[in-house]
Amino acid sequence: MCGIFAYMNYRVPRTRKEIFETLIRGLQRLEYRGYDSAGVAIDGNNNEVKERHIQLVKTKGNVKALDEELYKQDNMDLKVEFETHFGIAHTRWATHGVPNAVNSHPQRSDKANEFVVIHNGIITNYKDLRKFLEGAFALVFKSIHYPGEAVATRRGSPLLIGVRSKYKLSTEQIPILYRTRNFENVKNICKTRMKRLDSSTCLHAVGDKAVEFFFASDASAIIEHTNRVIFLEDDDIAAVADGKLSIHRVKRLASDDPSRAIQTLQMELQQIMKGNFSAFMQKEIFEQPESVFNTMRGRVNFETNTVLLGGLKDHLKEIRRCRRLIVIGCGTSYHAAVATRQVLEELTELPVMVELASDFLDRNTPVFRDDVCFFISQSGETADTLLALRYCKDRRALTVGVTNTVGSSISRETDCGVHINAGPEIGVASTKAYTSQFISLVMFGLMMSEDRISLQNRRKEIIHGLRSLPELIKEVLSLDEKIHDLALELYTQRSLLVMGRGYNYATCLEGALKIKEITYMHSEGILAGELKHGPLALIDKQMPIIMVIMKDPCFAKCQNALQQITARQGRPIILCSKDDTESSKFAYKTIELPHTVDCLQGILSVIPLQLLSFHLAVLRGYDVDFPRNLAKSVTVE
Amino acid sequence: MCGIFAYMNYRVPRTRKEIFETLIRGLQRLEYRGYDSAGVAIDGNNNEVKERHIQLVKTKGNVKALDEELYKQDNMDLKVEFETHFGIAHTRWATHGVPNAVNSHPQRSDKANEFVVIHNGIITNYKDLRKFLEGAFALVFKSIHYPGEAVATRRGSPLLIGVRSKYKLSTEQIPILYRTRNFENVKNICKTRMKRLDSSTCLHAVGDKAVEFFFASDASAIIEHTNRVIFLEDDDIAAVADGKLSIHRVKRLASDDPSRAIQTLQMELQQIMKGNFSAFMQKEIFEQPESVFNTMRGRVNFETNTVLLGGLKDHLKEIRRCRRLIVIGCGTSYHAAVATRQVLEELTELPVMVELASDFLDRNTPVFRDDVCFFISQSGETADTLLALRYCKDRRALTVGVTNTVGSSISRETDCGVHINAGPEIGVASTKAYTSQFISLVMFGLMMSEDRISLQNRRKEIIHGLRSLPELIKEVLSLDEKIHDLALELYTQRSLLVMGRGYNYATCLEGALKIKEITYMHSEGILAGELKHGPLALIDKQMPIIMVIMKDPCFAKCQNALQQITARQGRPIILCSKDDTESSKFAYKTIELPHTVDCLQGILSVIPLQLLSFHLAVLRGYDVDFPRNLAKSVTVE
Repeated sequence: MCGIFAYMNYRVPRTRKEIFETLIRGLQRLEYRGYDSAGVAIDGNNNEVKERHIQLVKTKGNVKALDEELYKQDNMDLKVEFETHFGIAHTRWATHGVPNAVNSHPQRSDKANEFVVIHNGIITNYKDLRKFLEGAFALVFKSIHYPGEAVATRRGSPLLIGVRSKYKLSTEQIPILYRTRNFENVKNICKTRMKRLDSSTCLHAVGDKAVEFFFASDASAIIEHTNRVIFLEDDDIAAVADGKLSIHRVKRLASDDPSRAIQTLQMELQQIMKGNFSAFMQKEIFEQPESVFNTMRGRVNFETNTVLLGGLKDHLKEIRRCRRLIVIGCGTSYHAAVATRQVLEELTELPVMVELASDFLDRNTPVFRDDVCFFISQSGETADTLLALRYCKDRRALTVGVTNTVGSSISRETDCGVHINAGPEIGVASTKAYTSQFISLVMFGLMMSEDRISLQNRRKEIIHGLRSLPELIKEVLSLDEKIHDLALELYTQRSLLVMGRGYNYATCLEGALKIKEITYMHSEGILAGELKHGPLALIDKQMPIIMVIMKDPCFAKCQNALQQITARQGRPIILCSKDDTESSKFAYKTIELPHTVDCLQGILSVIPLQLLSFHLAVLRGYDVDFPRNLAKSVTVE
Repeated sequence: MCGIFAYMNYRVPRTRKEIFETLIRGLQRLEYRGYDSAGVAIDGNNNEVKERHIQLVKTKGNVKALDEELYKQDNMDLKVEFETHFGIAHTRWATHGVPNAVNSHPQRSDKANEFVVIHNGIITNYKDLRKFLEGAFALVFKSIHYPGEAVATRRGSPLLIGVRSKYKLSTEQIPILYRTRNFENVKNICKTRMKRLDSSTCLHAVGDKAVEFFFASDASAIIEHTNRVIFLEDDDIAAVADGKLSIHRVKRLASDDPSRAIQTLQMELQQIMKGNFSAFMQKEIFEQPESVFNTMRGRVNFETNTVLLGGLKDHLKEIRRCRRLIVIGCGTSYHAAVATRQVLEELTELPVMVELASDFLDRNTPVFRDDVCFFISQSGETADTLLALRYCKDRRALTVGVTNTVGSSISRETDCGVHINAGPEIGVASTKAYTSQFISLVMFGLMMSEDRISLQNRRKEIIHGLRSLPELIKEVLSLDEKIHDLALELYTQRSLLVMGRGYNYATCLEGALKIKEITYMHSEGILAGELKHGPLALIDKQMPIIMVIMKDPCFAKCQNALQQITARQGRPIILCSKDDTESSKFAYKTIELPHTVDCLQGILSVIPLQLLSFHLAVLRGYDVDFPRNLAKSVTVE
């Protein structure tokens, strides 16, 4: 999982410094995808000189380190201007080979840098690579033999192309060109002279005028330059020559879309900036009153107590007839499935299985034609979840995507889906995506139960609960200072247990994961019901414990767990309901939360733990948005 | 698994009280073999009285309860002295029939107690018993018709005889006597008058002087009386009459040893309770070659590659018709379900859900009439699992118990079940019960797939694997010293991560639980596939990591995880296959395990973690058998 950015200016004069700035800014937007090393490849001299060569600058560390490195190069004139130029850039997240300058990208074909390439993905069969190109990848190539030309392709990893021109574009639909001859690998494609292409089969500025192309792993790196983009599909090969973008495929299938449309991004630049917050993660935590509202907007009708998820409505009949629901995800997305399992079981009256994507695949889990499989992924590109999706499709199950990224692989490859509409999430530790995934799954349950008379009161109760959520989230966020004080007490600890059960078990798993991810404390979410079967041995005066005890059907059982812990001199910090006078008697400290419907309480109870993890990480001196060893979207297995 | 003890005093005058004390002390030494009910048979009056009878005293509960019961008998004079007497005693671990006074031993031939017997083992073909004596057993007989005589035999279950005399013994080698006539059963043997034996063919005190014989399941019950013992072999029949011990066999084979030597035990009294082990848990870990064998005995036929679980066979048709399997447990029992989920999915071709009992209840999980629900519990009394059983019964699902305790609530309340037959487990941290639960569930899968042609090769492979398991477990146990050295390096740590995936994920959960339970280190089992979704942030030079990487379909994916960890300077200790040259290159240390079928590998891979947890706990100075805050069987919610 890496970030790819490439920039072509065609008949748009740019100094080398401007090109550097564009490449670096592009990488910075993608830094959430990886930041252990970075590099660029640009032309070593401008086009007028006969002797061409490509200059590579690569360094270990984040994009800032690369930026500094660029200006240390004494052989590069920053003022030299290129009328047409193609520069490629890469920020890496190591999966094979340690992060260092040699391992970072662009990689080259030879010492003379004749061909250079940036790659995102994992070539699992790297040993067989010389024979045949396989695996997962997004690739952008540059070569001294084809100055001003670009070749890009993808399979598994995302890639999109932004286009900007003052002039009219030749088309809004780029037809796909199929080859009759066999191309064995990308290198051959690269050799094809693009100049011979008919103008009508490619995208260019009318009259062969100035145009710029931006290649990136994610729209966030492009939006500041243009909102006009083309999303590449798996196995598309995009080529630019003489300012003309053409799209190629080797084989034609009957089901193929014959062209790629230019789409207009609705994103605002300001959406992806940090605002007044010290970290994206913090900003995203505080955005939740709005993001949660956006997830429901246009879908939940609070007057008629009905829910309509547009992306599912055509498949609802089929879903209602199914034998069981399987909800699949990784990390935080998996926790959203755990959090909503019970309410889905209740509202759909179907067996619901929740599965970690990697384990689901490892087990070759039996999946049947009458199963409905949900795939939860913020980025829509999570490799394991995507593979699980393909596994289920092969077995003819109906597939449903729940993602935050339109045009992502999961949203494209599923039969239908829900866009959680939480807005871009930059912080590596997912926060607002979790609460929006949670609500999306609840909305699905509500939609499924619309026709059941016996469930009408429950549905109304839940819909009523949804309506007041944004206000209640604001109330929880107002506890920030109190939680900060708590973090002051805890931040030197090494371990931390988070316990709960029932509707709030997922909160414990998710809270513990947040703490792990950004504070590097060994935190673990523990089912309170399992306490006596082992974890109780860990309890003593020293072990920091957080318990989630809400006024719901598990309240009495949680009180038992609390008694067991205090009997062993444990000193629990309790997240409890405002009106709970019992738990507070035994608590070392309490964080009192507003009360909502039992099945929605997890949305409120997770937020104090998101805030706590944030404050703990800051106090421990860590960069919250860039936790060590982790990247935002995991596009490798 | 039961405990047998019998005591013969020949021309050694003993009061009834002394005889009681010897019998009770013998049983107490054997109590680790079972403690759900107990009994003795002694002579009702001394030899001088013509009207002989045998007195039986039996009671539900442990040996202490029997001891109390003995002194409540108002018809027994404690001071009466017997010059020669034979008393037999038994402590029981129920495998068939609930623990109560009637079912406990000695068992009798008739209301007049003409013949009484104590038995350790399982007569698997008890229905055919009247026709022919088979099965596994150790037996000691006493009869009013042969006062002062004893007959004992064994097959499968252990039995040894201690001898004590102030006088010289007639021989050190007892020759085996073969019979030309066919003896159909032990009763006939018993009828043979031993008096006619030539003195030279048996063991006695020279000059027909005073001698005592002690019969027991285990040397630990004998060592306080004498260190001179004869170990009986399978199918040996030992008989004592007039103070003379002779050994008989029905058939003679060329390879047979022609005699049984008197051996001298090197044991110290203080060693014995736990054998040479410092804790029950350690003993139970080392018992696994036998306990695993016992689980399969009489059930897996290695010649015909068939499996028959007697307790399930009447319900098999109904189980095959079901919609899904739900496997429910707590703690270690839950891990046994996780461990076998994949092979159950493969062999039964049914969806399999595994559930923590408490969470299953908290969620009011939908259960249907066509579901089959398994309840896994060593004690058969685990409160949450029992409640889940009742919940499923209310919904008319077919219920199956998998317990180690016949007559337990779960074994009584389920429609059918499997007794795992691991023998009593005393250590609070469950070890041998886990491997036996594992095998029981695999056997169920094998039984379900018997009629599937496409699964025959797979079934044979698994059954073949089962056969060699006891030997391979011994090989793993021989790594104990190496694992002890590893513990020396780790025992001061506070945290410990255990990672794996696929078939070995359950090993990580279970290994981490063992470490938590008895070392109080914060250990956590982590799915290696989830590494990139959070836990990788914890990895650095300091964090101790154990990885389980076996040669199975997940091998390549585990290598990816290994690369990610070493790229972050993690120093993993790897449990790997003996023939794995790749993993060891990146390991800080390795523990190399023998290879078996993928779906059984988890039985071998968990044992090093059992041993590690034991050594860590001892080094940290904790009482392994009684971890703080925990109890053996959790009979409260």
